[in-house]
Amino acid sequence: MSYEDVLSEIIGGIRPTDPAQEQAAWDRLDQLTKPPRSLGKLETLAARVARVQGTDHPSVDRKAIVLAAGDHGVVAEGVSPFPQDVTWQMMANFVAGGAAINQIAGSVGADLRLFDVGVLSDVSHLPGVRVQKVAAGTANMALGPAMTRSEAAQAVLVGVSAARDLVSEGYDLLGTGEMGIGNTTPSAALTAAFTGAEVSRVVGRGTGLDDEGVARKADVVRRALAINNIVADGSPQADPLGVLAAVGGLEIAALAGVVIGAAEQGVCVIADGFISGAATLCAIRMCPACIDYVFPSHLSVEPGHAIVLEALGLEPILEMDMRLGEGTGAALAMGIVDAACKMISGMATFAEASVSGSEQ
Amino acid sequence: MSYEDVLSEIIGGIRPTDPAQEQAAWDRLDQLTKPPRSLGKLETLAARVARVQGTDHPSVDRKAIVLAAGDHGVVAEGVSPFPQDVTWQMMANFVAGGAAINQIAGSVGADLRLFDVGVLSDVSHLPGVRVQKVAAGTANMALGPAMTRSEAAQAVLVGVSAARDLVSEGYDLLGTGEMGIGNTTPSAALTAAFTGAEVSRVVGRGTGLDDEGVARKADVVRRALAINNIVADGSPQADPLGVLAAVGGLEIAALAGVVIGAAEQGVCVIADGFISGAATLCAIRMCPACIDYVFPSHLSVEPGHAIVLEALGLEPILEMDMRLGEGTGAALAMGIVDAACKMISGMATFAEASVSGSEQ
Repeated sequence: MSYEDVLSEIIGGIRPTDPAQEQAAWDRLDQLTKPPRSLGKLETLAARVARVQGTDHPSVDRKAIVLAAGDHGVVAEGVSPFPQDVTWQMMANFVAGGAAINQIAGSVGADLRLFDVGVLSDVSHLPGVRVQKVAAGTANMALGPAMTRSEAAQAVLVGVSAARDLVSEGYDLLGTGEMGIGNTTPSAALTAAFTGAEVSRVVGRGTGLDDEGVARKADVVRRALAINNIVADGSPQADPLGVLAAVGGLEIAALAGVVIGAAEQGVCVIADGFISGAATLCAIRMCPACIDYVFPSHLSVEPGHAIVLEALGLEPILEMDMRLGEGTGAALAMGIVDAACKMISGMATFAEASVSGSEQ
Repeated sequence: MSYEDVLSEIIGGIRPTDPAQEQAAWDRLDQLTKPPRSLGKLETLAARVARVQGTDHPSVDRKAIVLAAGDHGVVAEGVSPFPQDVTWQMMANFVAGGAAINQIAGSVGADLRLFDVGVLSDVSHLPGVRVQKVAAGTANMALGPAMTRSEAAQAVLVGVSAARDLVSEGYDLLGTGEMGIGNTTPSAALTAAFTGAEVSRVVGRGTGLDDEGVARKADVVRRALAINNIVADGSPQADPLGVLAAVGGLEIAALAGVVIGAAEQGVCVIADGFISGAATLCAIRMCPACIDYVFPSHLSVEPGHAIVLEALGLEPILEMDMRLGEGTGAALAMGIVDAACKMISGMATFAEASVSGSEQ
C-alpha cells in the first residue's frame, strides 16, 4: 500500500465523539459546589475532555509534547531573519534542555518528544531525537511543490505513529510543537489556501521580519500559490493532501498527523500557535471528524492564527501575546486543561458536601 | 499600640522595588534562545517577578493560597441567592477537599490556608481552619458602618500575619482567595468609593442574582455609601481605612493585609477576582508602594473587576470567564507565573547554546 492509501484508511476509521457524553459532564458540573457555570471556560474545557474520554471524570495525568522539526526550501527567498542552521542548532538546544519548551513543558509535567521529519542537517548524533527524516528539507515552494504527495503522506504518518506510540505508553494528553526556520511562510500559504483569506492578512513578522521582509514574504506566498495552481478564493480545496504537499512543510504534515493520530486513539490534542494551527487546519480538511479532539492553546501574535482559529470554529484557551512556537503555548495550556479535569473529577456535589444550594 | 497604629507602622516600612532589577531581567530575556519578546506576557511576568525578588533568576517554588472567610450583615438586604450558612458549609467543604479551590490549587502544587476572620458560625471544630475571628460577621452596611476602624485594622493585621507566617515557612508566592456569602456587595461599594465608577457599573450578578436582585443590590450599595457619608465621585478618599471599615468586609480587610504583608516580606502576591481585587484596591490606597508586588490573576465576569484592574493599572494574566472566587483564578495563574520563572531562569542564552542569532 502507498503512504497515501495507508493514510486514507486511517482517516476513514476515525469516528466523531458522542455529544451525550458532553451533556453528562454538564449535568455533573451543574451539581458541583459552586454557582452554576461560575468557572466559565474551565467548565467548557472539562466538558469537552469528558466527551473525548467518554467519562464525566476525565483526567490528563500523562502529558507529552510532540515537537516535529523540518527545514524549508523557501528560506532561499529570504523569508526569515534567522539562518537555516538554527533549525538543527535548536534541536541540540532542546536535547540539552536550554529552550523555552523544555522549561515550560517541565512546569506542567509534560514530556517532550523530538522528531526529525525533515531537518536539512544530520541530527542523528543528538540523543533522544527520533530520526524519521522523510527528506532533507522541502523544495522551494515558490518554484514548485514543496513535497511530493507521497512525501507529504509519509510525513503525516510519522505524526500518526508518534501519537499511537505515546498513547500506547499511557499518555492521555498530547500537544503539538515545531521547529523549522521559515515555517510561518508555508503556514501562511496553507491558511490562505484553506480559508480564502487575503495573503496580506495571514503573513506576519514570524521570528522578526521588518516591513520590507513581510512584503517580500507575502509576495513569496502569492507566487507559491500561483505556481502550484492553488486557487485561494475560500472555496473548499478538493485535494487537501495535494495542497499540503504543494505549499506545506514536513514538520507541518507530521503535526497534522499528530492530530489525526490523537483522534484515532481517542485522546485530546492541544495545538500550539500559528504553525500548529495551520497543521490542524490541514488535518481537519483531510478528516473533519478530528475537530472534536482538538484544543487550541493560545492566540498567537502572528496574524494568520486568528484566521485559522476562526476557520476551525475553536476558541483559544490563553491570550499571552506569544509567537515562539516549539509547543510553548500548548504546554502552558496543558496546565489549564489539567486543572479543568481535576476540577470536574475531584469536586464534591452540593449533596455530597451538605452545602445548601441557591434559593432562587 | 492600637491595631491602627501597628498597621500604620507596617505600611510606613514598605519600600518600592528597584526598576534596575527589572531591566536586568529584560537584558537576560533578550539573550535567551528565542526571538526577542516572542513569549509576550510570559516575559513581562518573569521580569516583574525578577524585580520583586531582586534577581534575574527568579523562582516561585512554594505557593500558598490564603483563603479568608467572613460573613456580611448586608445579606439581610437580600443581596445573595445563597443562604448565609453556605459560608461555613463551604469552609467544611474546603477542609474536606471538595471545593474547586482544592482541586485547582492542587493542580499547580499550591497549599491552601484557611482563615476564619469573621464567619458568623463557630468553625473552630474544622481541622486546619485558623480561627482569627475579629467579629461574628459584619454589621449591615446599609444601616451604618460594617466594622469599626479598629476591627478593620485588626482584620488587616490577620492578613499581614498570615503573609509573614507563610514567608517564614519558605513560601515564595502567595495568592488571595475568599469565602463570604454576600461579599460582592461590599466589593462593589469599595470599588465605587475608590474609583468613582457609577454604582450600576460595579454591581453584578454575584453568585447568580436575577435582574431584580441586581437592581436591589445597586440600591443597597447606594444606601450604604450615603449612610456612611462616602462621596464616591472619583476624588481620592482621604481615609481609606475608614472606607474599608464602613463598606468593606472582614475577609476583604484580611486580604488587603495579605497584599500589604506580601509587600513587606518582599514576595509576589497573585490577586484572585473581583473581591480580591477590591481588597487589593484597599491595600494600594492605604499603601501605594504595594503595587509592585501585585499580580492580578484573571478578569472576572463580575463587571466591577475590570474597573478595579483599570484603577490599579494592572493587566490580568487570564481571561477565563470565571466568577467563583475562593482563589480559583489566583491558583490557576500561579501555574503561568511558575512557567514564566522557570523560563527566564532555566533557558540557555544564544551564546551558551551555540545557536546563531538573527541576521537582521
